Amino acid sequence: MYRNQRPCETSGDSKKGERLSLSDIQITEVRVLDLRFPTSRAKIGSDAVNKDPDYSAAYVILETNSDLVGYGLTFTLGRGTELCVSAAQYLARYVRGRLLSSITDDLGAFSRQLTNDSQFRWLGPEKGVIHLAAAALINAVWDLYARVEAKPLWQLVADMTPEEIVRTIDFRYIDDAITSEWAIEHLKQKRTGFNERLEVLKQSGYPAYTTSAGWFGYSDDEIRQLCRDGLADGWTHFKLKVGGEPLHDKRRAALIRSEIGTSNKLMMDANQKWGVEEAVRRTRELAEFDPWWMEEPTSPDDILGHARIKREVSPVRIATGEHCQNRVFFKQLMQANAIDVCQIDSCRLAGVGENLAVMLMAARFEIPVCPHAGGVGLCEYVQHLSAIDYLCISGSMENRVTEFVDHLHEHFVDPVRIRNAHYVLPAVPGYSIEMYPQTLRDYNYPDGSVWKKLGASGG
Amino acid sequence: MYRNQRPCETSGDSKKGERLSLSDIQITEVRVLDLRFPTSRAKIGSDAVNKDPDYSAAYVILETNSDLVGYGLTFTLGRGTELCVSAAQYLARYVRGRLLSSITDDLGAFSRQLTNDSQFRWLGPEKGVIHLAAAALINAVWDLYARVEAKPLWQLVADMTPEEIVRTIDFRYIDDAITSEWAIEHLKQKRTGFNERLEVLKQSGYPAYTTSAGWFGYSDDEIRQLCRDGLADGWTHFKLKVGGEPLHDKRRAALIRSEIGTSNKLMMDANQKWGVEEAVRRTRELAEFDPWWMEEPTSPDDILGHARIKREVSPVRIATGEHCQNRVFFKQLMQANAIDVCQIDSCRLAGVGENLAVMLMAARFEIPVCPHAGGVGLCEYVQHLSAIDYLCISGSMENRVTEFVDHLHEHFVDPVRIRNAHYVLPAVPGYSIEMYPQTLRDYNYPDGSVWKKLGASGG
Repeated sequence: MYRNQRPCETSGDSKKGERLSLSDIQITEVRVLDLRFPTSRAKIGSDAVNKDPDYSAAYVILETNSDLVGYGLTFTLGRGTELCVSAAQYLARYVRGRLLSSITDDLGAFSRQLTNDSQFRWLGPEKGVIHLAAAALINAVWDLYARVEAKPLWQLVADMTPEEIVRTIDFRYIDDAITSEWAIEHLKQKRTGFNERLEVLKQSGYPAYTTSAGWFGYSDDEIRQLCRDGLADGWTHFKLKVGGEPLHDKRRAALIRSEIGTSNKLMMDANQKWGVEEAVRRTRELAEFDPWWMEEPTSPDDILGHARIKREVSPVRIATGEHCQNRVFFKQLMQANAIDVCQIDSCRLAGVGENLAVMLMAARFEIPVCPHAGGVGLCEYVQHLSAIDYLCISGSMENRVTEFVDHLHEHFVDPVRIRNAHYVLPAVPGYSIEMYPQTLRDYNYPDGSVWKKLGASGG
Repeated sequence: MYRNQRPCETSGDSKKGERLSLSDIQITEVRVLDLRFPTSRAKIGSDAVNKDPDYSAAYVILETNSDLVGYGLTFTLGRGTELCVSAAQYLARYVRGRLLSSITDDLGAFSRQLTNDSQFRWLGPEKGVIHLAAAALINAVWDLYARVEAKPLWQLVADMTPEEIVRTIDFRYIDDAITSEWAIEHLKQKRTGFNERLEVLKQSGYPAYTTSAGWFGYSDDEIRQLCRDGLADGWTHFKLKVGGEPLHDKRRAALIRSEIGTSNKLMMDANQKWGVEEAVRRTRELAEFDPWWMEEPTSPDDILGHARIKREVSPVRIATGEHCQNRVFFKQLMQANAIDVCQIDSCRLAGVGENLAVMLMAARFEIPVCPHAGGVGLCEYVQHLSAIDYLCISGSMENRVTEFVDHLHEHFVDPVRIRNAHYVLPAVPGYSIEMYPQTLRDYNYPDGSVWKKLGASGG
């Protein structure tokens, strides 16, 4: 029921066998599932603040009048997923019953519809639960769009004209930083070298780094072993979770640095643990281990705080973004010279369009984009965004790596593939987020078999 | 069942007639209701962005082992209230079953518990749905606290020592702007003149302004009549909603200015309608009508945008806050010199403690606090906050007025009272948010009689 790799056909007889266009596809139903994976039991994903995440998703299924189905999700940490599910069920009114072409003709306007409901927007606007829910729906529409066009998402965007790309973006509240005119001009300029870059992607993929080695809850022995495994697999960039006791952080930083040597990169991630002045102090203390960046040193809401930390810990670079609520926020991080590394999130931002907006601003401010990933489905998503960034927007891989975490990929029909610490360019039509029907059944919360079993065993 | 104006007694026999202490009170149950008022049908509350609000609330009832009951709410605009209800029901786990003293002994720690749930915080942190929900619970606990102490909320706080006040605040992420030491010292200094200020409040109340005249959906004739009624009632500050067509805004501004004359104040509110550069342009165009402030000229997320607008439209003053997500955000608006007027919201911020934090920062940065109110219950709440600000924090009424909108007060057991355009100091124990049982039944959504009737008539 959920899987479809066949060519696009309607389920009715009339168009059987014909290639469908966007205006042939009607979204007949929107289903939203609450999926949760019991990852907290193995300390997977643990850090100084997120101590026990159960990687989860509000998972959207767009059924159509054809064999085609669109899939989208927003990523969560367990409890509260039900809120994103409810919000997505409400926002589904802007999707259900519509011809796909009525959405894809103006994806910028579609985003505004979802984020600007006159009563719902009070709960944000454009942040938190309702923005995460909008992301699931917007991502699902893009997935369906790409499937109709029979292209992987990155290619769907790469094949658009600059004008078409810009039309998918909501420039509201960011036009003091970039205008649609600037964006079109920039995208036109970046056509130069496109084919060569595509060849690079096809040959080598997009560079990745691993966060699998340094989770907060892992023992020294586990970290040591994971570093050795990582080096053997060709990884060159490793991330360590910090924000614990100073001596604990230092001991682990020393351990991982001694394992990976000085030629490989070590990134540190404090996951919002510190106040501004504490972040300056602690980052300076850890500078001896030569961090390639310090990530989320303080509140994700503190633009000016990040700017001050960046000034005061230089040359250590500052990264943030997985909790940046929207494009208006990223705009200011860039205007305030508050970040060295822009970590877009495919679900925290409201889908493909808002991510494109932020990648364009990053190009304007000359800040490398290194997407946040991990969790469930985020790696599947960001591989497309990084490909788009390289092909169409930044045109560069310099100082750019995309996060990779080796969890839960087995649930995806077309999972990410890593080769020599690079993401392999996806080839299957869509946005790579379709999960196996068995997964949708087993991990459904709270009624799936996995949760019933955990409940029964007191888990 | 919901009403209790009797002295504090347990329902058990053992302590009958004795005055209860905080450690006698156990919160036995937490109920959360979805209340909605069909205000959109009369264009009440309409502005350039919020076109059809149905003033609503996630309404919390804390039942105890005594006759005392605590009440709290968070304000919403209708659709989506169910999300705040669900979130509050989840967060109720940090309240249910606890002795009240275990919370009031460290209200700062209690706030951190509610805002820092290790899985739930991913949905924020400290913003949107989950923060609004936290506010309802925190406000309810403060209401119960004040009832046990048999004091109106403002007096509960005013009677605390500086050290006790500071202990209710979470200084995380704001200690680069104010520390607890600075706050204690400031509160101590402001003890001077306390009794005189209390006398002023008792005699004259706290100055208010009216937003009832200038809603977006009102006709010119309605506005004209409401201005005349307002002047007759002693109002001196009037707010107009702008953000429509330029000529439309100008005509209405001219109309209201001609009605109220040049000696009364006219405030304008664009409700986030404009981009940064548009806001500068439009505010300059409206400057001829001498606005006392321009409110929400652009995205509430745009700190740097507000700072630029403020620089470029001076001497028109810039106000914002009803959509400011938390204390970290207000901190930056002040650090960036982005606002002239700080409009705290009793529910957008997570309750009394976070409002105290912002009022203290406003004192530190010498920015007047003019609370946002209106909706349902917000006037009832902010009259206490303004009294606390005047008595303990700012010590001044200069350039300070608290919003008042004359809607829905009839549903409250102890509603606000306005005398000569001033809020009368509340005298009844608690935080003034208890509603009549009949209201809780009739406006319950979707099963209350009001909604059943509207449904039946196709409303």
